[in-house]
Amino acid sequence: MEKITGIIVEYNPLHKGHRYHIEQAKSLTGCDALVAVMSGDFVQRGEPAIVDKQARTKMALAAGVNLVFEIPAIYAIQDAKGFALGSVGVLERAGVVTDIVFGSESGILEDLDRLAERLHQPDASLLEKQRGYMKSGLSFPNARKMALSDLSEGGENAPETTLALSNNILAIEYLKALRHFHSDIAPATIRREGAPYNDLALNDRFSSASAIRKWIREGHNELIEAAMPFEAYQLLRQEFDQKQAPSFLEALGSFMIPFLRARNRDHIKRYSGVVEGLDLRFVESAKRSDTIQALLDGVKTKRFTYAKLRRILLYLLFEIDDELIRESNAYGPQYIRVLGFDSVGQETLKLLRSRSRLPVLSTGSTFLKMLRKLEKPGFAERLDPEFRYALFRKQIELNFRMTDFYRKTFFNQTYISPMDIQTPPIRVLNKPD
Amino acid sequence: MEKITGIIVEYNPLHKGHRYHIEQAKSLTGCDALVAVMSGDFVQRGEPAIVDKQARTKMALAAGVNLVFEIPAIYAIQDAKGFALGSVGVLERAGVVTDIVFGSESGILEDLDRLAERLHQPDASLLEKQRGYMKSGLSFPNARKMALSDLSEGGENAPETTLALSNNILAIEYLKALRHFHSDIAPATIRREGAPYNDLALNDRFSSASAIRKWIREGHNELIEAAMPFEAYQLLRQEFDQKQAPSFLEALGSFMIPFLRARNRDHIKRYSGVVEGLDLRFVESAKRSDTIQALLDGVKTKRFTYAKLRRILLYLLFEIDDELIRESNAYGPQYIRVLGFDSVGQETLKLLRSRSRLPVLSTGSTFLKMLRKLEKPGFAERLDPEFRYALFRKQIELNFRMTDFYRKTFFNQTYISPMDIQTPPIRVLNKPD
Repeated sequence: MEKITGIIVEYNPLHKGHRYHIEQAKSLTGCDALVAVMSGDFVQRGEPAIVDKQARTKMALAAGVNLVFEIPAIYAIQDAKGFALGSVGVLERAGVVTDIVFGSESGILEDLDRLAERLHQPDASLLEKQRGYMKSGLSFPNARKMALSDLSEGGENAPETTLALSNNILAIEYLKALRHFHSDIAPATIRREGAPYNDLALNDRFSSASAIRKWIREGHNELIEAAMPFEAYQLLRQEFDQKQAPSFLEALGSFMIPFLRARNRDHIKRYSGVVEGLDLRFVESAKRSDTIQALLDGVKTKRFTYAKLRRILLYLLFEIDDELIRESNAYGPQYIRVLGFDSVGQETLKLLRSRSRLPVLSTGSTFLKMLRKLEKPGFAERLDPEFRYALFRKQIELNFRMTDFYRKTFFNQTYISPMDIQTPPIRVLNKPD
Repeated sequence: MEKITGIIVEYNPLHKGHRYHIEQAKSLTGCDALVAVMSGDFVQRGEPAIVDKQARTKMALAAGVNLVFEIPAIYAIQDAKGFALGSVGVLERAGVVTDIVFGSESGILEDLDRLAERLHQPDASLLEKQRGYMKSGLSFPNARKMALSDLSEGGENAPETTLALSNNILAIEYLKALRHFHSDIAPATIRREGAPYNDLALNDRFSSASAIRKWIREGHNELIEAAMPFEAYQLLRQEFDQKQAPSFLEALGSFMIPFLRARNRDHIKRYSGVVEGLDLRFVESAKRSDTIQALLDGVKTKRFTYAKLRRILLYLLFEIDDELIRESNAYGPQYIRVLGFDSVGQETLKLLRSRSRLPVLSTGSTFLKMLRKLEKPGFAERLDPEFRYALFRKQIELNFRMTDFYRKTFFNQTYISPMDIQTPPIRVLNKPD
């Protein structure tokens, strides 16, 4: 195994565009194994995933991924920067990944990389302009975009044009995260086909995950079936038939509204992302609202995106404070959770077990063994210099708690599944001939 | 108005035994006015009241009470000691109450008062024995009872016999609270008729509030009607007909169970009363439970009563921490909330407004006026030496929040009522002839 390629995914759910990306990543890098690091049961939009991480792992393996890791939950529900730090951090610290391939609207690595370099260590004039726009009420991404625009000469490849597209933004954050971890992994980008702002013809070819989620909500089975690879669609149907999916954020309304009504501003302020009077806006909106959407509408200003507000709701729900986010972003992910593998992935995993700079966890028993190992003097020295035992405990505890909540409480209530800590990885192994 | 008598009540709901107590309190003291301080929408058992405080105020006025105050919520949901500090504190600081009358199984003030004196400043031998029993796993009330028993000679009026009865325990706490506030109010006790452990014949005569709540749950209307004064029953029926009642703790299950599941032990530990591994017991029980009762059964040990555990659930729900309880018990109540009055009560209120050592609040506008007054230098000096502005804000904020939650969220969901801060007192005034 000389070449192992990493990709960063959510598969919410996995569609034909994702399968195309898998194939491209393989052919572009000529890798021996393809490793995906994937969101767990809550995704970057600040929502529950439409189906759980086990089903989405099966979809990934069926579509050609060899090994699936989980993006630690504390990163999966952050903005682009935190999401990138967590997912790139897992791939980097796995110790075996040689390449990383991600989609972008741009498709030109040099353009993205130049921007990443500039934003990784922004100069004084950029920072000053950015601060000015934030003071005037813009959100951070928009303030940054406007500041870059002021300093650029415009044109098709101008920074502000590049930063207007969501996959470019993520791509730049991945490139910044590679710098953050002083990584030797070689990045490559594939021009994203079917991207919403690009090309209607291509858009027809690959439907987006958000279109599929909309069709799921509206029950358009034929459209969903056409948009997904056969195996992924079968897996999705199976989840529906067993009433384990779909999960929508709306199910949290009956919880989050009374939650906010029972609290005052000082209680709400304690959680991450609650800044600039958002505490009052949440408390007041909850008094008037009966649904999550009405609640968010009542809080929304141009300063905050809906995704940001949804993520804050998750921070409130799971009592995630700034400290955990700050520490997590400073020190990076502290474990590698294995969600599934095929035969090639199993070989990769063997290699990884000797080279990983993070504890590798698959079942509850490996978790408990790992705890004991980590408590022995000397063991932690094998790990990344930024490994922190207390942070490891906090990150994995949150991950278990969020998954158990997803499975046992609001979503998939009929799902009689084991606790997350007891759930083994999905194995899709070749039968011996 | 020379004699104004105070009583401490919950009226959950008001029954014939309560009316008898009202009549006795009046005839015993020969008072010019009877003032009741009553729990709001959550009661000392750690539950929502079966009907809201406005309806219960109407019942009280119809049964002969002249003026109704609210026990500040932070005291109404505490154990006997905190409940007594809050309710006696309001009566004392009102500045006009001359007598206080309470029921007890004992009926002999001297016995109760001797015990109150002993427990107000317990001697070293009592404290030592008490600590020993608590270490062996007994709850505080039981440890105290056993310690007193060890030091007594037994018999019908022995401390341990007296302290086995719930109304005696409350009576002793009222007497202790009078000492705490260095009060000049004269206490008197009425032997409680219809007390559960006393006399079956009397028990037949007056049904208890808990029996009535059971009948409400089971729909035995004829029994309820027979147990309540006519007006109180009419008021209760009206609440039922308008779907504003009854409220039961069980309605909180759909909230409290996910609330606990989304949290870890450290989050739960933060709230008042969560000691000695209760955090773990709550977290683990929530994983297995689907109802409030199952949740509480899974947490229960002999160290804690169900009432105590229910009160802790309310502390978790409203984020009540030890600091607020500790400060409230140290400095006493910081406001007098007027829930209702009749013509005699209106006169009493006039007197009270010039003599009260606490801010007197009736409507939202008096609250806002009071805030402005309190912010002016000099005004607070008129008040009790233990008045604390910050604590006043915290106590009244919790009171409004709990009432609004009760009205607008889990209980009485069809109730289109104003927010608590905008709700004026109930007035039952004589028409001029």
